[in-house]
Amino acid sequence: MRKFINKPQDVARETVEGFLAVHGDRFEAIPGTLAVRRRRLRDKVAVVSGGGSGHEPVWLEYIGTGFADAVCQGDVFAAPDPHSIAQAAKAVERGRGILFVYGNYSGDRLNFDLAAELLAEEGHRVRTVRVADDVAAAPPGRARDRRGIAGGYFVAKAAGAAAEAGLPLDVVHDVAARVADATRSMGVASGAGTVPGTGEPTFDLPEGHLEIGMGMHGEAGVRRAAMMTADDTVDEMLERILADRPVPDGDSVSVLVNGLGATTRAELLIIARRARHRLTRLGLTIHTLHLGNYATSQEMHGFSLTVSATPRELREYYDAPAWASFLTGTKEVSGA
Amino acid sequence: MRKFINKPQDVARETVEGFLAVHGDRFEAIPGTLAVRRRRLRDKVAVVSGGGSGHEPVWLEYIGTGFADAVCQGDVFAAPDPHSIAQAAKAVERGRGILFVYGNYSGDRLNFDLAAELLAEEGHRVRTVRVADDVAAAPPGRARDRRGIAGGYFVAKAAGAAAEAGLPLDVVHDVAARVADATRSMGVASGAGTVPGTGEPTFDLPEGHLEIGMGMHGEAGVRRAAMMTADDTVDEMLERILADRPVPDGDSVSVLVNGLGATTRAELLIIARRARHRLTRLGLTIHTLHLGNYATSQEMHGFSLTVSATPRELREYYDAPAWASFLTGTKEVSGA
Repeated sequence: MRKFINKPQDVARETVEGFLAVHGDRFEAIPGTLAVRRRRLRDKVAVVSGGGSGHEPVWLEYIGTGFADAVCQGDVFAAPDPHSIAQAAKAVERGRGILFVYGNYSGDRLNFDLAAELLAEEGHRVRTVRVADDVAAAPPGRARDRRGIAGGYFVAKAAGAAAEAGLPLDVVHDVAARVADATRSMGVASGAGTVPGTGEPTFDLPEGHLEIGMGMHGEAGVRRAAMMTADDTVDEMLERILADRPVPDGDSVSVLVNGLGATTRAELLIIARRARHRLTRLGLTIHTLHLGNYATSQEMHGFSLTVSATPRELREYYDAPAWASFLTGTKEVSGA
Repeated sequence: MRKFINKPQDVARETVEGFLAVHGDRFEAIPGTLAVRRRRLRDKVAVVSGGGSGHEPVWLEYIGTGFADAVCQGDVFAAPDPHSIAQAAKAVERGRGILFVYGNYSGDRLNFDLAAELLAEEGHRVRTVRVADDVAAAPPGRARDRRGIAGGYFVAKAAGAAAEAGLPLDVVHDVAARVADATRSMGVASGAGTVPGTGEPTFDLPEGHLEIGMGMHGEAGVRRAAMMTADDTVDEMLERILADRPVPDGDSVSVLVNGLGATTRAELLIIARRARHRLTRLGLTIHTLHLGNYATSQEMHGFSLTVSATPRELREYYDAPAWASFLTGTKEVSGA
């Protein structure tokens, strides 16, 4: 075990405490939960996200201007419980309704649905958008069974932007749902992370091999192969992603090159180089290209690519000014 | 080898190309070199940084508003050559002089000094600040032999801010030199990275052990031990850092919790939690606390802590608005 932690059973709680130790000026704990909320809230739809911890920065740090108003973590790789979710939602609800945005995993679905029932009983309006962007997780006919991976970034960003714009709940929901529908991702791994509680690797993969389509908890992918070049890996992944949902004429694409944990920034830059080249060769216009560790799986060595078809009328939600603690330099402060 | 690259000998070049593939709107290549420059330059002192590649984001991405005007990478773990450095400097010089800011390694020192001679022969004014913040690298009596590690962030930030403020070369130099003098760091590792060219680990460390004071190329540290808790590790490192240069009365401290490559963000948050607790218990006031991968060593598992004593009259240089592609949410765009 190489991790710098204290007791394994305290990792999820101490991670939240660490977040507040750095960003306590903006956010505060919701007592008795692994949830945090924004200190200063405006009169607008409340956006609430969450999921198992162990994938930081998602979901813990997907909070702030233009993102969620509250996030609720579970233990490592475990869904948050319904009561914590409901408590987090009530802490930020302002009479304009609540939008849940989270990844499509059975535990999360169950517990967020239970939380929605609890909230509905108390008279709160709740709507839900699930992120199911991983094209490797199920064939197109069963797209509702797909896992949510790094593409959740664009969905969370759009939901947050629509809410900040003061739009009503149904419109905020529809914006986020349209972005979720237009977003496709795929991951690849060449080495496993380890679970803090056990020190065991999240999956077995022979050294010198990669698995395309690997999930964020080590779920099986679509193909295992001897290690390939970065360029060939990117080309195959983009082909699979674009085949799943061709980009409509006139749409540009928003792209996320996401590191899964141990991948070096140099690798991500080399991957981004090829992704831009390849997408441009395919005649696509890149609207925005993000690069960094946006959704991780412990110290997994690998990356995911996300392509989100971006029609003109939705661009404002991708581009809106936003602040979250994990965001790398995507906004300029005072000129280049 | 788990890395997603193409030919190992192309890693440094393709990394630079990847950076420009993402941020080509702001930066451009300097032909024939591994250097990049800002496209739009103001009439001010030119700040030029650089060093071996393989530590991204440093130095490649330490460029932009409030950082360098040009950066010059070398091959992986190798200093840039003097002619490339001189060419990078001339590309951004505006008649107000040039400040070199880089890490204190013998190859870099040699080649930046040669570049300074070449530039002086052509009539350019050049001054230099070397970052030598690693207290594990040499005892206080030989502080000039110390390596530069993640504390270079505060030095580069201060130099960039002073230059943006339009100050003359000697003052920009003095601001950066004062910050360098007040900045101390120490690293720790529990697992090695691998060098792209060979696939070999950068050092040998038995599994389940850590080495305190480990350098960014695997240089030996001050103490090897069985794996310790995060809290105990942070406490020992802070004690060593603060003993080396006690914080003057009245100064607050700027802190950087830096991941060395494969360390998870949850670990960095748990480390930051303890660092804030410990520094506060020692009666110190934290001026700013940064967290993220600011200076890495391939996929090394480990972190470094930096404490920079921050007197009131220098705070503006730590706080000035800035934009660089690796910077995580340190500035607010439109309210929390």
